[in-house]
Amino acid sequence: MPVPLIETLASTEPLAELFSDTSVLRAMLEFEVALARVEARMEIVPATAADVIATAANSDAFDLADLSRKALRAGTPSIPLVKALRKIVGTKNHAAAAYVHWGATSQDVSDTALMLLLKRAQPLIEHDLSRAERVFCALSERHKSTVMLGRTLLQPAPPVTFGLTVAEWAAAICRCRERLRHEFEKALVLQFGGGSGTLAMLGERGHAVARELARELGLACPDAPWHTHRDRLAALLCACGVLTGALGKIARDISLLMQSEVGEVAEPEGEGRGGSSTMPHKRNPIGCAVAIAASIRTPGLVASYLAAMMQEHERSVGGSQSEWPTAAAIIQATGAAAASIAEIAEGLSVDAARMRQNLDATLGTAFAEKAMVLLAGKVDRETAHGLLEEATRRVLNENRPLTDVLAEMPEVSTHIERPSLQQLSVAEDYLGSADAFRIAILETIRRAGEKN
Amino acid sequence: MPVPLIETLASTEPLAELFSDTSVLRAMLEFEVALARVEARMEIVPATAADVIATAANSDAFDLADLSRKALRAGTPSIPLVKALRKIVGTKNHAAAAYVHWGATSQDVSDTALMLLLKRAQPLIEHDLSRAERVFCALSERHKSTVMLGRTLLQPAPPVTFGLTVAEWAAAICRCRERLRHEFEKALVLQFGGGSGTLAMLGERGHAVARELARELGLACPDAPWHTHRDRLAALLCACGVLTGALGKIARDISLLMQSEVGEVAEPEGEGRGGSSTMPHKRNPIGCAVAIAASIRTPGLVASYLAAMMQEHERSVGGSQSEWPTAAAIIQATGAAAASIAEIAEGLSVDAARMRQNLDATLGTAFAEKAMVLLAGKVDRETAHGLLEEATRRVLNENRPLTDVLAEMPEVSTHIERPSLQQLSVAEDYLGSADAFRIAILETIRRAGEKN
Amino acid sequence: MPVPLIETLASTEPLAELFSDTSVLRAMLEFEVALARVEARMEIVPATAADVIATAANSDAFDLADLSRKALRAGTPSIPLVKALRKIVGTKNHAAAAYVHWGATSQDVSDTALMLLLKRAQPLIEHDLSRAERVFCALSERHKSTVMLGRTLLQPAPPVTFGLTVAEWAAAICRCRERLRHEFEKALVLQFGGGSGTLAMLGERGHAVARELARELGLACPDAPWHTHRDRLAALLCACGVLTGALGKIARDISLLMQSEVGEVAEPEGEGRGGSSTMPHKRNPIGCAVAIAASIRTPGLVASYLAAMMQEHERSVGGSQSEWPTAAAIIQATGAAAASIAEIAEGLSVDAARMRQNLDATLGTAFAEKAMVLLAGKVDRETAHGLLEEATRRVLNENRPLTDVLAEMPEVSTHIERPSLQQLSVAEDYLGSADAFRIAILETIRRAGEKN
Amino acid sequence: MPVPLIETLASTEPLAELFSDTSVLRAMLEFEVALARVEARMEIVPATAADVIATAANSDAFDLADLSRKALRAGTPSIPLVKALRKIVGTKNHAAAAYVHWGATSQDVSDTALMLLLKRAQPLIEHDLSRAERVFCALSERHKSTVMLGRTLLQPAPPVTFGLTVAEWAAAICRCRERLRHEFEKALVLQFGGGSGTLAMLGERGHAVARELARELGLACPDAPWHTHRDRLAALLCACGVLTGALGKIARDISLLMQSEVGEVAEPEGEGRGGSSTMPHKRNPIGCAVAIAASIRTPGLVASYLAAMMQEHERSVGGSQSEWPTAAAIIQATGAAAASIAEIAEGLSVDAARMRQNLDATLGTAFAEKAMVLLAGKVDRETAHGLLEEATRRVLNENRPLTDVLAEMPEVSTHIERPSLQQLSVAEDYLGSADAFRIAILETIRRAGEKN
Repeated sequence: MPVPLIETLASTEPLAELFSDTSVLRAMLEFEVALARVEARMEIVPATAADVIATAANSDAFDLADLSRKALRAGTPSIPLVKALRKIVGTKNHAAAAYVHWGATSQDVSDTALMLLLKRAQPLIEHDLSRAERVFCALSERHKSTVMLGRTLLQPAPPVTFGLTVAEWAAAICRCRERLRHEFEKALVLQFGGGSGTLAMLGERGHAVARELARELGLACPDAPWHTHRDRLAALLCACGVLTGALGKIARDISLLMQSEVGEVAEPEGEGRGGSSTMPHKRNPIGCAVAIAASIRTPGLVASYLAAMMQEHERSVGGSQSEWPTAAAIIQATGAAAASIAEIAEGLSVDAARMRQNLDATLGTAFAEKAMVLLAGKVDRETAHGLLEEATRRVLNENRPLTDVLAEMPEVSTHIERPSLQQLSVAEDYLGSADAFRIAILETIRRAGEKN
Repeated sequence: MPVPLIETLASTEPLAELFSDTSVLRAMLEFEVALARVEARMEIVPATAADVIATAANSDAFDLADLSRKALRAGTPSIPLVKALRKIVGTKNHAAAAYVHWGATSQDVSDTALMLLLKRAQPLIEHDLSRAERVFCALSERHKSTVMLGRTLLQPAPPVTFGLTVAEWAAAICRCRERLRHEFEKALVLQFGGGSGTLAMLGERGHAVARELARELGLACPDAPWHTHRDRLAALLCACGVLTGALGKIARDISLLMQSEVGEVAEPEGEGRGGSSTMPHKRNPIGCAVAIAASIRTPGLVASYLAAMMQEHERSVGGSQSEWPTAAAIIQATGAAAASIAEIAEGLSVDAARMRQNLDATLGTAFAEKAMVLLAGKVDRETAHGLLEEATRRVLNENRPLTDVLAEMPEVSTHIERPSLQQLSVAEDYLGSADAFRIAILETIRRAGEKN
Repeated sequence: MPVPLIETLASTEPLAELFSDTSVLRAMLEFEVALARVEARMEIVPATAADVIATAANSDAFDLADLSRKALRAGTPSIPLVKALRKIVGTKNHAAAAYVHWGATSQDVSDTALMLLLKRAQPLIEHDLSRAERVFCALSERHKSTVMLGRTLLQPAPPVTFGLTVAEWAAAICRCRERLRHEFEKALVLQFGGGSGTLAMLGERGHAVARELARELGLACPDAPWHTHRDRLAALLCACGVLTGALGKIARDISLLMQSEVGEVAEPEGEGRGGSSTMPHKRNPIGCAVAIAASIRTPGLVASYLAAMMQEHERSVGGSQSEWPTAAAIIQATGAAAASIAEIAEGLSVDAARMRQNLDATLGTAFAEKAMVLLAGKVDRETAHGLLEEATRRVLNENRPLTDVLAEMPEVSTHIERPSLQQLSVAEDYLGSADAFRIAILETIRRAGEKN
Repeated sequence: MPVPLIETLASTEPLAELFSDTSVLRAMLEFEVALARVEARMEIVPATAADVIATAANSDAFDLADLSRKALRAGTPSIPLVKALRKIVGTKNHAAAAYVHWGATSQDVSDTALMLLLKRAQPLIEHDLSRAERVFCALSERHKSTVMLGRTLLQPAPPVTFGLTVAEWAAAICRCRERLRHEFEKALVLQFGGGSGTLAMLGERGHAVARELARELGLACPDAPWHTHRDRLAALLCACGVLTGALGKIARDISLLMQSEVGEVAEPEGEGRGGSSTMPHKRNPIGCAVAIAASIRTPGLVASYLAAMMQEHERSVGGSQSEWPTAAAIIQATGAAAASIAEIAEGLSVDAARMRQNLDATLGTAFAEKAMVLLAGKVDRETAHGLLEEATRRVLNENRPLTDVLAEMPEVSTHIERPSLQQLSVAEDYLGSADAFRIAILETIRRAGEKN
């Protein structure tokens, strides 16, 4: 299913499909079928009933529009779904109808269905993160000696390497990917509690049915139902929020580096990509726009989810009913951001020459700190700082290299000899631990990869 | 179109329809047709071109899935839409194709389409608010003398009237409705700026075209395009947030008053409404759940919209692209809350006898303040407060009426005579300005109604 | 009081002072004194009592640390404050102590105190907005013909004028300032309801006391208390959120225009302003950082406030108790953003030559749309778009002006003559309605100024 | 330092102290001293310089108001702090002044200072969580057989045990406590990168200095500086958000169970606790109010932090500058919620008799599901559901026990014999896996405790 127009850029096609009516319905039916199967196996319901239920639970047999309408009146899609399923089962085998949804409550269906959907979302998102991480690591190796201007508060700062920059992007993705996996593992648990969370209808066998049902559905079985205790799911959605923020940072950097006045990197081009409806010259950072849009929306969505956690007693009035659209929006935004960053990474053009050129264009002001270090041994620090403030002001006003300006300042030239000054703007001499950091990062990523 | 299952309870059917693919597409086409018509009228494009464009702009002729896919690559649905429209026009009249979208940019289409959708949402929401307001005013009249327990921090407080309570609900809705209307009026403006917001393609006639186009579309014409200045729309969505919060308060109160232990009001029953998938006795506050769910989600959604306001220069990277799903979610949540409260209001059962009974069940502790006032003239305030703390503790421990306990306390009985004590629990004697407030509120609502 | 270090950049000194312990305490005492005075005037309490209360209500006489500690146990600062005041009054005049806080409840004190603080915040914020608005209008006049590169998605677009850009900033501030004033007017109302919101302790005179008390305090008197109906205050804080978003957009633009690679504007310099602890050449956009920081924090804070609106019955458990820090943080962030933008505006340097130079540096690609219009009459639109995509690609690859490239393309040169092509990059020819928009904006601002 | 009045209820005294000016200043000085010591040890700066710096870094020697004012101009408190420190050092030893802050940048100071503060916050919060967890586990044992009404959507549902309810509270706290500890471990890392995050001033020894410095400060040393990669801190603050949500759920439940109409549990009483300024009988759920207030505020605060993650290049304009107040507010809100829940837990009164009484007061409707199970074997499910809907309606209308009503309905009495019906309302027969769940939960908590 394509992404709805109103949510253009807010999802990917596989994730829009995942949260489509048919897919949601199937996940709910999957719960009902698994429940009947397990209960038949444990001789709680007749084996024939389970068979009939499995046959009846064909999503094509349901009227989605009718379910939606009734859901709004019932306060949950589970009630009309169970009624409809019971009716279909009844037409096939009257006695079997009674065993539909045996022992379960509405929220068991809707929560577990959400778990099944999230489980399918996980590899989609992880795959895109791995793609981006892999490419950024390779780019980091390739550009380990590519020098670029550091920029703090969007102003020139001492140089960095593009290799370090992109390694830090990879590291952020790696940390977020591991955090996400950890939270998926914790969160993907069965919800099965019956009316009040005691599975009373199943007498003493409730917990055992729960364990079997979890196994059948490929989910973990928690110590107890979690109908109104939502911290695991909240933590997963927070991990999505953190990841999206990290991806947004990468996208913002790329979009800034793509400015025509900077021009150091560029998103991949492609048919129908990044153009304009009127401006034929445009190569817009569309992938960045998608990732940034996700980063803008997600914090508020995470807040919406967290705000839903104060759920009353054994089932809430409003809290649980608010969760589906929020969770679906977060997962889709996260997936859209991950897919965009992966696509950008794989097609990123890097203009190392322009990077050097932009660094040179600062006329040495990016090395003012370096000059201050040279001076600091000779004059006191405040004096050194003052001399360099003056020197850099002259660089900007007179449009001349810092080296030349400093050479003319007697307070400087008496302390630092010409050759040292000449050396000032050699970026390679002032990279500090850039490569050590880079190597440490890549090693950690490598080890993280091995663990999995 | 029914509400998607994953958004069950998060919209209403008319609003889901409003933001459906077809409806969004039509709104975008409406912009293109109006633009061509106005430009033809002003002899900027040929009249035949406008006719062909109007004929071609039939939503059935567009492949929605294809538009959605291309939108994700283009970064906006407008680009593939314009291309597709141009193609259809071209097959009918080759020359006319060039005049499609003349002078406009993608964001002009998407922003103005959103305005057209919002304009249609306005009466839907306002209608439901009026319904609720009207019924609450009538209930307030009917229950002006219906005494109920006041409750502060969920603990008993001096009595109020249900008439005042429900008048305050009506007043909140009335204020929010007026605020919403005000912000709709300010926000429903044309966006039309061309590539950079100067309408350069239209030479000196841009502003004039804008004025005509606004008139054609039934929108206001702003002084200038607002591509990256989103305060008007932000203020509208904030007004939705404030309204939803106000409705959530009403819903929370009703859901609390519906507790079986309280039982003072009840939501309307009805086929398929408020039941449970397992518990046959249930009469769940489903309408409240929908309104509360909206109130839980909306603050975060408003935050998402506000966070998108820092849009760069003449068009943003990510900010504007994030807006559609957020705006649509807020409007739909607001509409769902309004519809729920209207439905609840129109079918609310009120149990005045139970209200009195709950008040009596406090054994007079709700009147401890009143007793203190009686005492305060006789003994000093701290002493009076202390005596009543002791008396109310005995009421709760011994399960006897405050009147009786006080009568036995010599420090009290020497100051207050038996008849005064007997009078203590007459709620009608201790309602203060409840009815004066109620009358003032209803008068303000009446005047607000006259103004419109 | 200086801004606390942990909130550095999140407030201004006058606003930090406004929300300091002493100021908050004074506002609460102001309520108690006014209440006693009004009640004395209306012969509800003895005149001597009011005098003693007024004398006792000296903030220096209170132990702030003790109040704070007791507030946490009492769940509100009002309870220990009233107790402490009563004690002080009692030492002066035993009988008067009973009349302290007569008829009021804790929330009456805390809500009304907040109103009094907000009332003092209003002119502080409005003053800074007016400063910025005025300077931006003047800059707009001065730079009405200053041409600059339009930028959409951070990529070159057709030219705009700096005069229009800065007029749009002024317009956004003007709209937000009017919205803010409107919401201040609506929100600055007395809260006075007594225990349950009926002013029962005052018998039938409650509403009359409320009207007098409001007048005494310089606040409006609402139809009824609003203890759990918070929409007016919510709307005011939303208006702050919208304003802060609008200011953040301006700050983001300025910070981007200040990039050394762009260099079109600069924040004012000054002693201790915008430097770095290590880099002597730095001129950081500190004012922008403050405004953007406010814009980043405020959406979440607004969400926190909106989330508090679902307040139970006559006084909430948690909702009202959550409001003070949120409201104070929003007001202070708003004030910090407004002060920063005012300071930036008043000292902004504008480099018109650099603006022209950056436009020229696009080698004419900013005029690709204009070229397409020229061509569009001659060849069909898709062809024209295609030709210009190719031409602009060659411009970027070969680093040659668009004019030259187009002149060499036979598909172009047969349709457009050399002189027309030469004219292509004259920005002044392609500004459309830029100045018309600018004039309309300034006229609206002028009229808004007259109204006030 | 007591909590500021405007933040009453939003912090605890130790946490307010932690984020006070003096404490923040000391944490910043701690960084500078450790840096000098480590660099002296590594012979990068003279040993005497380090000694002088250590002596000079006495918080009493600094003018806090002056620092605050200059911080607002400098855009960070670090710059004026370093200047002031350098000045003090210079008065003691002129040469040493140059070595203050050697190799570091402002953000190194402010980020690492925040880490040091967070490290001290951790045991404060964890201690309160442990207190609550321990008491809830003990309560769960004591009340393993205490039956109480289940409540779904605030309506009666089949019974649960208070032992299970409180075990679920403990389990949520335990999971959140472990998550918090995990994120603290990951997040408490040194920030040390120098101007551009390469530690260029330290040549090749930067990474080694970083490792030593981290050890000196008791923080972990990351692979690389994280100036603009904030995911670790974001994840920690999200864990606070999730925890606060979980605590809010507990507080909401307790406040609902404390309603006079329910009366099943009560917060501890105490001097100055939970009273009212006017109502002498009040025992307000103040601890719940504090925890709920934290839960209401925190989601928005988390959103503010996540929104700050898109930080540009090597240092952001606005993002990083927005973090301190947000982080401090989240930590304090979390601590206030934890302290409140701990205090409530330790003094909670439980009224087991009232629990039974409220269950009985449903007249058996809480057992409608159980009756349906009995019937379901005999008649078809829809019929059974319908019969029970009718029966429960009669129970409510006629105020008679479900058992009696059912006994009179021939469709029921032919299928179920009187003794079975009599057994219907025996709650102990319909608790399903309540105790199995409870035992599993407590076992997991026990094992989690052992691990630590």
